[in-house]
Amino acid sequence: MQAYVLGAGKTRFGPSSHPMTRLAHEAILGALSDADMRIDEIGAFVVANFLGGPNESQLHLNSVIAGLFPGMHIPGWRVEAACASGGVAIHQAVTMLGAYDPILVVGVERLSGRPGNELTRNIGMAGDAILDQAQGLNFPATYALVAQRHMQRYGTTTRDFEIVSLKNHANAQLNPLAHFHHKKVAQADIDAGATVASPLRLFDCCPVSDGAAAVIVSAKPRDERSVPIIGSGVGTDVISLAQREDHTSFAAAREAARVAYGQAGITAADIDLVEVHDCFTIAEIVAMEDLGLAEPGSAVELIRAGETGIGGSMPVNPSGGLKAGGHAIGATGVGQVYEATRQLRGEAGKRQVEGAEIAVTHNVGGVGGTCAVQVLGRLS
Amino acid sequence: MQAYVLGAGKTRFGPSSHPMTRLAHEAILGALSDADMRIDEIGAFVVANFLGGPNESQLHLNSVIAGLFPGMHIPGWRVEAACASGGVAIHQAVTMLGAYDPILVVGVERLSGRPGNELTRNIGMAGDAILDQAQGLNFPATYALVAQRHMQRYGTTTRDFEIVSLKNHANAQLNPLAHFHHKKVAQADIDAGATVASPLRLFDCCPVSDGAAAVIVSAKPRDERSVPIIGSGVGTDVISLAQREDHTSFAAAREAARVAYGQAGITAADIDLVEVHDCFTIAEIVAMEDLGLAEPGSAVELIRAGETGIGGSMPVNPSGGLKAGGHAIGATGVGQVYEATRQLRGEAGKRQVEGAEIAVTHNVGGVGGTCAVQVLGRLS
Repeated sequence: MQAYVLGAGKTRFGPSSHPMTRLAHEAILGALSDADMRIDEIGAFVVANFLGGPNESQLHLNSVIAGLFPGMHIPGWRVEAACASGGVAIHQAVTMLGAYDPILVVGVERLSGRPGNELTRNIGMAGDAILDQAQGLNFPATYALVAQRHMQRYGTTTRDFEIVSLKNHANAQLNPLAHFHHKKVAQADIDAGATVASPLRLFDCCPVSDGAAAVIVSAKPRDERSVPIIGSGVGTDVISLAQREDHTSFAAAREAARVAYGQAGITAADIDLVEVHDCFTIAEIVAMEDLGLAEPGSAVELIRAGETGIGGSMPVNPSGGLKAGGHAIGATGVGQVYEATRQLRGEAGKRQVEGAEIAVTHNVGGVGGTCAVQVLGRLS
Repeated sequence: MQAYVLGAGKTRFGPSSHPMTRLAHEAILGALSDADMRIDEIGAFVVANFLGGPNESQLHLNSVIAGLFPGMHIPGWRVEAACASGGVAIHQAVTMLGAYDPILVVGVERLSGRPGNELTRNIGMAGDAILDQAQGLNFPATYALVAQRHMQRYGTTTRDFEIVSLKNHANAQLNPLAHFHHKKVAQADIDAGATVASPLRLFDCCPVSDGAAAVIVSAKPRDERSVPIIGSGVGTDVISLAQREDHTSFAAAREAARVAYGQAGITAADIDLVEVHDCFTIAEIVAMEDLGLAEPGSAVELIRAGETGIGGSMPVNPSGGLKAGGHAIGATGVGQVYEATRQLRGEAGKRQVEGAEIAVTHNVGGVGGTCAVQVLGRLS
């Protein structure tokens, strides 16, 4: 596989008064500017979005995006795989470079402006209509089941969740585009957090964000700032926990990582940093284990030892992750690749992981029904 | 480009009591059976669907489809491009055969069971939220504007629309899987039809259907029944008529045809039959002109002369089209390829176009915001 990120752009994730079009436009112009390209050099585009229909009454987003550049008639479509839409869109672009080159991927989502119960219901559409939604198994409740089982099986504690949350909030303070960039979160805040779905409390849950991210990929590097994508995998699984034997690990994630690592010729030991899908703190722990960064049940050892911080041996979510960086659903997986690109170029500012050469992104849909994993960087 | 349809399956289009999962399953098993393959021989899958979220409260359909085959973890995702979702999904599969082979494409939609006003609103999400939806420009109204302009500019008449409708209903009577297979439509029925959006009346409008269609594509033929896809193009455009200069032709369709014909090395004169996106009768006329089957304004000459019937010089929609074959939105573009496959194999029964060697499918999203065109067959 031969693919490169030529340019990447991203809006701030967080509440915004801008419509999806403007958010997407800002991210696209950012990516074009970063790559020093014009829109008419693009061969095709993929739009990643989850809730444009139910939330914004806007489907057919490829045509909406085409409308941002009148006269542009190149191929484009929307891809949706719940919260993994962005990572899947990147994968799709990488696999289509034989037909179109370069390809623009833009992920965009607006989640604010809806009543909370309506938004919870809409996000629930990533779960099975009968097995999950009709039972009241919204996503905090679903991930609470994962957390309960992980605690029961491996002795994981709510204190481990707190360490993940504090670490990601601290990282977000170093990331100007993070949802909670300006919010300092201390132990007292966490202690005061209401229970959302036991054992998960407020600071175990990511926010819902508005935002967009865009990435331009090509089979050829454009300049020395082009960042290689050396592995890309997608895995799927049955949608509901009710259909699975194991609730402490996601087979789709293990499959996506297996494929991506295989293409890249790496093992977990080669990885310098990961951006993982921590929609809930427990999800970061599961992600580390699914990515092979730790044996099942032992990710907490790295977490407790502080090794997942930016200066640690295995930095996890230097951007702040979904937890504190924000979760603009369709944009999240694209934003992870934006972050990996910045890190591997040494452009990540105060959150820079020094000497990073291999970065992995991990983007999950639902409770592991879909997962996309990308490996970026150069083997030294 | 080297691609083949190995197998194709389709449910009846029309009102169904079955959920999306069962419709999709039936079409997938049909395609596997037709190709004489097992699901574990498939490399990846693409799901085409438009309104799963707003209508059925079910997004993340790739995971839902994965759940039909427990233990299957192969890559899959949903593609959405309004009513062109199916055609775009076929295009996407064709362009990804370097990465995965074979690829299963399944289009599925449930549209019945919703109150009419809710369904009209949901289908309207294929139009711009502000420029179209907020102005009451639902799709009958939008295509009525296209019809008005076409009549004004070229002298097209409502009688031409009636001929299209009668022809497609007659064809549907020859197609056991058509929505209106059992309905004989005569001039008196058309005359009695209420005005929907002037000049379009009831029999100018396609029905909304439930249904699914599936196609398996590969870079290699499997046997003598494998049908080559020799061209595949997708075009996009601004979403709203309000943003366009020309309301009588769709630039996205002309672009998709240009690319697909170029890959196939054909001109319009080589085509033996077309399946076009006649969501309204006027759309069949526009489609013929965009595909180059007639000069702008002159498709009606072929229509009036009866040349678009199954035995004519340029058969259009032998399946009955969307108008009478039915429109199960996400499945429609996949169903067109199913029909082309059957025709080119000589398996189309009473609706067979004798000696057909080149078939073209034309699948439109919105009012021409997206178009996918495929060319199937062999040049003799």
